[in-house]
Amino acid sequence: MQNFTFQNRTKIIFGRGTEEQVGVEVKNYSGRALFLYGGGSIKRNGIYDRVMDSLDSSGIEVVELGGVQPNPRLSLVKEGIKVCREDEIDFILAVGGGSVIDTAKAISIGVPYEGDVWDFYSTDMDIEESLPIGTVLTIPAAGSESSPGSVITKEEGGYKRDAVDNELRPEFSILNPEFTYTLPEYQTASGAADIMAHVMERYFTNEEHVGLTDRLCEGTLRTVIENTPVALEEPENYDARAEITWASTIAHNDLLGTGRVEDWASHKIEHELSGMYDVTHGAGLAIVFPAWMEYVYQENVERFAQFTTRVWGKETNYYSLERTARGGIKALKDFFSDIGLPTNLNELDVNIGDGDLEEMANKCTEDGTVGNFVKLDAEDVLEIYRIAR
Amino acid sequence: MQNFTFQNRTKIIFGRGTEEQVGVEVKNYSGRALFLYGGGSIKRNGIYDRVMDSLDSSGIEVVELGGVQPNPRLSLVKEGIKVCREDEIDFILAVGGGSVIDTAKAISIGVPYEGDVWDFYSTDMDIEESLPIGTVLTIPAAGSESSPGSVITKEEGGYKRDAVDNELRPEFSILNPEFTYTLPEYQTASGAADIMAHVMERYFTNEEHVGLTDRLCEGTLRTVIENTPVALEEPENYDARAEITWASTIAHNDLLGTGRVEDWASHKIEHELSGMYDVTHGAGLAIVFPAWMEYVYQENVERFAQFTTRVWGKETNYYSLERTARGGIKALKDFFSDIGLPTNLNELDVNIGDGDLEEMANKCTEDGTVGNFVKLDAEDVLEIYRIAR
Repeated sequence: MQNFTFQNRTKIIFGRGTEEQVGVEVKNYSGRALFLYGGGSIKRNGIYDRVMDSLDSSGIEVVELGGVQPNPRLSLVKEGIKVCREDEIDFILAVGGGSVIDTAKAISIGVPYEGDVWDFYSTDMDIEESLPIGTVLTIPAAGSESSPGSVITKEEGGYKRDAVDNELRPEFSILNPEFTYTLPEYQTASGAADIMAHVMERYFTNEEHVGLTDRLCEGTLRTVIENTPVALEEPENYDARAEITWASTIAHNDLLGTGRVEDWASHKIEHELSGMYDVTHGAGLAIVFPAWMEYVYQENVERFAQFTTRVWGKETNYYSLERTARGGIKALKDFFSDIGLPTNLNELDVNIGDGDLEEMANKCTEDGTVGNFVKLDAEDVLEIYRIAR
Repeated sequence: MQNFTFQNRTKIIFGRGTEEQVGVEVKNYSGRALFLYGGGSIKRNGIYDRVMDSLDSSGIEVVELGGVQPNPRLSLVKEGIKVCREDEIDFILAVGGGSVIDTAKAISIGVPYEGDVWDFYSTDMDIEESLPIGTVLTIPAAGSESSPGSVITKEEGGYKRDAVDNELRPEFSILNPEFTYTLPEYQTASGAADIMAHVMERYFTNEEHVGLTDRLCEGTLRTVIENTPVALEEPENYDARAEITWASTIAHNDLLGTGRVEDWASHKIEHELSGMYDVTHGAGLAIVFPAWMEYVYQENVERFAQFTTRVWGKETNYYSLERTARGGIKALKDFFSDIGLPTNLNELDVNIGDGDLEEMANKCTEDGTVGNFVKLDAEDVLEIYRIAR
């Protein structure tokens, strides 16, 4: 087990009706907030009104900014920074999924920074100041509601990059599982893949003696595997939605990575895909992760065998851990297919040629190798894209 | 799943050599600290010197207060409050196990409070102010290093009572698993029982659809079950000590109880025992918990059957969940015996008569029934003491 430091200040307010607390929570920080959201879905499903009612009751003055898109764009971040500066706003409330929250985080560090906010995403620069933010979550997937990360796409060149700092954790996050009832099936499934990927990026490690976090990872994965088909079949099943929602936070609040060397190659390989082709991130992961597994599993067959047995409940073949390991990869791929996700690039509605794969592989590794389970260079990444085809 | 709010601000600094950071951490809060500890063990094993060196390097002025005993006493709390007031100390560093940390917490709320600090333990009074505290953990057991609780014993009448409030969470806790190498076997084992009890108080619930936290609980229990025998056999096995240490924090930082109705009857029943007879808390739990289980398991045989199968890895008897359930209780009792703990009152070196049991049962329930899995009155508690005999 590696030495580690773990601290997560985010206050989680979980359950039915918890959006009624949002006004009181914001009031702890400011009387004036930027209300950030995505498309119009929160207006159609009533979430907008319910949040606004609570803000009104607490007398919070609100400036609205909508239009955050999936794979959120730097241009909207810059617009948000401008609005906050002009209107002297010192609190940001993000109502939505990971894209809205990540945009809020980017705005929160951009407002007090004199330079270009992209600096935080293109370099390892420390974050010294930020506006406090709160969230009302509508899509369990990204885990951004209590994570220290934010991922933004710079339209020019299709660069999708992240900033990570404890300063980026929201002050509070309100999680009402009912808010996920109206998610389209594809989004529910993509969210599940994203949650599972956050756990698996931590689970696949060569670090030894990480038994406790192994088991916490396995338990979180099993929870998503058990509950996603239920949520797809019965979109208004509160219990299944609640399990998935809480799992999404746990998967990415850093607890599951404590003491471990994490991997993150699959995320980086996927980011090229969604940065270039605007693929839904979770769906991209459903394609990339099994391909990554096929490429690397022989480096640590024991870990993949444990994955097969403990996560998928399959018997161990004691005479061939390799065969056992492959059983787990197949189980994952089958699961993604069963919940309606693509598991190959050619299932996507985009045209990706050989040259494109090479370009993505080069861009993915332009700062050096990616991943820790196996350190991958451009050739490795290209091979993984090819397996994914 | 119940609605819940979860927030845990404690910064965990985990691993070898992390005590070197204590001075810098304290310096974030004050240049002057009360250094609180227990008996002389930290002087013999070198922990005292290592912590003091770090405090010196950061120029922290230190006032020492030693002598905290197991089942920590109100009298020492009052002494600590007096010292802090006289010397104008505004930070408390607890170096030790749960007793030292709980004493630090009591002092931290007593200093700014004009009344009797026992008020916080004898009533539900809100805690409005406290001094910040930090900890250097030497015994993985109580989980007080990031919990919101403190348990203190009032010598007069042998009352052992708790105060619980988010305000009581330490600002930081330094966990170096090497510091647990020199623990006597009985303390290592008692600590394991305490950790397991913290999980089981949450695990045994009638709340349905708490699948994620079920699995997190089960994983934490299995970790302790796997690693405690290793630590007893090889006291300097870092990996086993590290797993147990991190499990002790996870078991009691409130995450595992999210969304659940918790029980806590066994703790209350045990507190009478250790309050009256100064029994080691973990050892007392090893006696009380299996007795409580025998008394209540028929109320929810399914949950106990799940415990047997998932925690102890035993096959389910599908034709008799009741028999399956009893297998788990037996496995727990056998495990406690195997690691050298008493599992019956008569194994303790104290003389407890029938009248004493009645007195404890009455005192335990003087504020009403205890527990939620089954609400227990004085007669029920008495019966559990009798089963434990």
